[in-house]
Amino acid sequence: MRIRLTLEWDGRSFMGWQRQAHGPSVQAAVEDAFAAAFREPVVAHAAGRTDAGVHALAMPALVETARNVTPFRVMEALNYHLRAAGHAVSVLAAEAVDDDWHARFSCTGRAYEYRIVNRRAPLTWEAGLALREARPLDSGAMHAAAQALVGRHDFTTFRSVACQAASPVKTLERLDVVRDGERIVVVAAARSFLHHQVRSMVGCLLLVGRGEWPALRVAEALAARDRAALGLNAPPDGLWFAGATY
Amino acid sequence: MRIRLTLEWDGRSFMGWQRQAHGPSVQAAVEDAFAAAFREPVVAHAAGRTDAGVHALAMPALVETARNVTPFRVMEALNYHLRAAGHAVSVLAAEAVDDDWHARFSCTGRAYEYRIVNRRAPLTWEAGLALREARPLDSGAMHAAAQALVGRHDFTTFRSVACQAASPVKTLERLDVVRDGERIVVVAAARSFLHHQVRSMVGCLLLVGRGEWPALRVAEALAARDRAALGLNAPPDGLWFAGATY
Repeated sequence: MRIRLTLEWDGRSFMGWQRQAHGPSVQAAVEDAFAAAFREPVVAHAAGRTDAGVHALAMPALVETARNVTPFRVMEALNYHLRAAGHAVSVLAAEAVDDDWHARFSCTGRAYEYRIVNRRAPLTWEAGLALREARPLDSGAMHAAAQALVGRHDFTTFRSVACQAASPVKTLERLDVVRDGERIVVVAAARSFLHHQVRSMVGCLLLVGRGEWPALRVAEALAARDRAALGLNAPPDGLWFAGATY
Repeated sequence: MRIRLTLEWDGRSFMGWQRQAHGPSVQAAVEDAFAAAFREPVVAHAAGRTDAGVHALAMPALVETARNVTPFRVMEALNYHLRAAGHAVSVLAAEAVDDDWHARFSCTGRAYEYRIVNRRAPLTWEAGLALREARPLDSGAMHAAAQALVGRHDFTTFRSVACQAASPVKTLERLDVVRDGERIVVVAAARSFLHHQVRSMVGCLLLVGRGEWPALRVAEALAARDRAALGLNAPPDGLWFAGATY
């Protein structure tokens, strides 16, 4: 029985998706909840790994079980045991999938949101869920500058030194900057991303928004293919894995 | 110097606006931050008192000081000291006001939002910030039923036994139920509200939404003018003080 789960989590209390020797991870929370519910060890595979402090609105994950249980019962049991363990992870949906479906390898599109609250006052209920930027941001300039990154490029500049991808070449399908009052959301979509790519792109757009970088500098940073050309890596707080397509 | 503050707070860590002998309050947090910043005791007055667990998006409050400080400096100093004390309260704006302005007595309109997430999965990042309702809600029926409460009525049914208002008669200007996907927001506006009025109205609308009450029963509960006719008092989690007019 192969089950596709759709997970939501609050990244503030996790070191990221992947199981860690020291510290809580979403993967361990889900696997431990499964073991508690069905007395069976499982390995959970997600569409993407996320860093510490990064959140998920709808992350697909695969679990495979020898038990004869319905997806609905798996969802209910996982939610019960996740809650009992005090983890801020929920299963939004569960469905049976074919043998050839894999959360990571079958994934054809991933979307992230980066949430910015552009105001002077510190955040209250949203602390850790968005980035507060006190300097006024020119979101129009940010959106215009972002378009230089859309398309197929070598994203070496926007890649962490720890990135394990075989190639730095990725096709960025969409990078939109949308403002609604004091709230700005950067939406990024691609088949896949390099490690820290979204946070690195958002970091440079923040510099453009503050007027510290001319818009052209984003294209120059890309062309440099050099991590040293990166202006700023945005913190994880504002980053949300928004969804995946198959 | 009389200063109007606009406050945002996360109600999860407070016993409400009003200073309490035992437990943290928003009023004490603001007054203590002012004393720490300016070595002067002040009393803060808000547009409305809120219960434990209730949040604010934009609550006007008045402080009066003998010190010769600009509103901007008050805002900055309060935000600094509120943060230093670990309080989830922020000052969004500050401005000088005339002698005849009072946050509570000059207020001519108050608005609340009640946020509901209508889904089976428990909340993660939004726990305590919205009400999760697992049963499918008919938001159209809720909105229709709500209209029976709009206007000038004796709201005794929707008033807590602890309510100190002189009269149970209030004029409800607006009670709208709006759905966006799994999210439902109830918007309530009036010159003033009775204690627990919004939560009590939302509680009855939840019963209508679940199909446990016919819409007509809301009008009957109102006509009963009897607290015993109330079906349900909704929990504070989903309630946000949204703004005030003067």
